[in-house]
Amino acid sequence: MREAPVSLFGADRPAALSAGGLYWQLHQSFILIQIRGGLVIIDQHAAHERILFDRARASLAGRGALSQSLLFPAAITLSPDEFERYESLGGTLESLGFETEPFGPRSLIVRGIPAGVRNWNEGRLLQEILGEGRSGVDGFLRSFACRAAIKAGTRLSPEEMESLADQLFATELPYTCPHGRPTMLRVGLAELERRFARSVSPERT
Amino acid sequence: MREAPVSLFGADRPAALSAGGLYWQLHQSFILIQIRGGLVIIDQHAAHERILFDRARASLAGRGALSQSLLFPAAITLSPDEFERYESLGGTLESLGFETEPFGPRSLIVRGIPAGVRNWNEGRLLQEILGEGRSGVDGFLRSFACRAAIKAGTRLSPEEMESLADQLFATELPYTCPHGRPTMLRVGLAELERRFARSVSPERT
Repeated sequence: MREAPVSLFGADRPAALSAGGLYWQLHQSFILIQIRGGLVIIDQHAAHERILFDRARASLAGRGALSQSLLFPAAITLSPDEFERYESLGGTLESLGFETEPFGPRSLIVRGIPAGVRNWNEGRLLQEILGEGRSGVDGFLRSFACRAAIKAGTRLSPEEMESLADQLFATELPYTCPHGRPTMLRVGLAELERRFARSVSPERT
Repeated sequence: MREAPVSLFGADRPAALSAGGLYWQLHQSFILIQIRGGLVIIDQHAAHERILFDRARASLAGRGALSQSLLFPAAITLSPDEFERYESLGGTLESLGFETEPFGPRSLIVRGIPAGVRNWNEGRLLQEILGEGRSGVDGFLRSFACRAAIKAGTRLSPEEMESLADQLFATELPYTCPHGRPTMLRVGLAELERRFARSVSPERT
């Protein structure tokens, strides 16, 4: 399953970056990228899941997490189950870049969240992750990646699309999300020509 | 085979025109359009062939052709076969919007060409069409449409893409070029979701 990201990025690198217009977002859900041999279609949510999951695992492995401070610290009240899970996670949340401290019997103050997380939602993100109760650290990381990743229906600028693609191709398993679903489809020019019943000779008619 | 263009344009009309960015050109050959239910991929050459062919047939049926005057009239020398074909075509060329007059034994002066034709190529277009010798008026019109249509590898502005799509959907047989090949492929969002192995429930993960 392990594939070197370098060769992939070589072949699928967007063609002629200077020409511009190589990134296009379809229905605010899919990123279409022109590459030399055709087209790559990226599922933006699945791609971001893979990026966040890998970054979270690297953080837990001690490579340090980037945290972004909240402008206004958030106070969050948890259910008993959620609070129990919060306590059982120990330093895991902190390793990911969450800066929290207990505050009263079932409440937290959150001062910082992992860098790059978009769906903070005034703290609902943390409640959702703590409420899912998937087993094991990997299950928790999958919950985190899924809940924190950009969703379908989020408009992205060309720069954000490029950054997302760059980060995806820099992961070790760019082709699948943490659940094992594809993050991208490749459509070759030859396949398109075939679908259009074109001859591939230079004299195209 | 006859399909009403009205209903098609209803269903496949680009979504939310005001949002912009609904047209994207891939490898200067395919036009991708976001429609409400997904994506339409248009083969720009095949689409333009259909448009020019239909317009040429309407011109021959007496509905009048728009002609664009050349800034500098062109003198073209034909082979004996080409010249014979030119003479045998009688008023056909004129009906299409070509303004020509014989000039010497095997030469023409061309003062105007059909509006919308891009590949004039200093007269080579007319030589190519006259040289192909396809039989019948329809064969001649197919040669004309194929040679005069924009080619793969031609960069189009968003306005040009929109205009081409509009003109295509205004024809009576927008789905095929005069040779019977597809002008467009439709990719539904449901198909994309399926290819990405996504559940179609609102809680997408």
